[in-house]
Amino acid sequence: MKALGTHIVCELSGCNSRALTDVEGVRSMMVAAAKRANAEVMEVAFHRFHPQGVSGVVVIAESHLSIHTWPETGYAAMDFYTCGDHTNPWAACEYAAKMLGATSMLTTEMKRGIESSNGYFMHVVTGENEGHSITKRSA
Amino acid sequence: MKALGTHIVCELSGCNSRALTDVEGVRSMMVAAAKRANAEVMEVAFHRFHPQGVSGVVVIAESHLSIHTWPETGYAAMDFYTCGDHTNPWAACEYAAKMLGATSMLTTEMKRGIESSNGYFMHVVTGENEGHSITKRSA
Repeated sequence: MKALGTHIVCELSGCNSRALTDVEGVRSMMVAAAKRANAEVMEVAFHRFHPQGVSGVVVIAESHLSIHTWPETGYAAMDFYTCGDHTNPWAACEYAAKMLGATSMLTTEMKRGIESSNGYFMHVVTGENEGHSITKRSA
Repeated sequence: MKALGTHIVCELSGCNSRALTDVEGVRSMMVAAAKRANAEVMEVAFHRFHPQGVSGVVVIAESHLSIHTWPETGYAAMDFYTCGDHTNPWAACEYAAKMLGATSMLTTEMKRGIESSNGYFMHVVTGENEGHSITKRSA
């Protein structure tokens, strides 16, 4: 099965609320996460909400990384989507979870851009909440 | 089950190659798609690759919409992720498919930001390739 990319849909809980509110910190962390994934950063767009919360995306040559934060509940919804054999979205995911102080991480991994025999492109869920689901960590 | 958001992971095939190459057109289409979803546009970041291909994201007050295109094969990998009962990501998805001239669309819908009894946030796949899977259209 040849896929163009891997997309990790990730929910982080128990994150540090201050970290989730700091738009500059989140932006820097996301750019660093992209580099951990061995991706090339093309564009960066972040927004700070009031009274709280951050949304932002790093467009990479190999797709994108995104984050949306709810500091009031310590929750961050993240996506790590990279194409090409040279990238590793899990490295970005694990780095972000660590940097935000997450105490649990729930993920679903999908392989995207699989060309079927009739020429259509598909995706498949390859790891649904497996391996990286609700993992308590010593924070 | 109370979820903060709905995320549609979408693969479009058979798209118009010229439309997938035109970064300004893709940007305008994505902003219009966000409005179709009844979302509020906060930030826009797009990149044109050479020789071809476009990547871009519209950060909305309610999460984000993204696109990555492969004009050479008529393929676009898209995400439509919106929060709040006032938004409808399917309206954006269907609009994008129509505007790009897609002849098939494969989707997986996820509900994100579901708070479990132990305080952790989860997601669940609510429509895996159902209802909107490989649908041939009269292009």
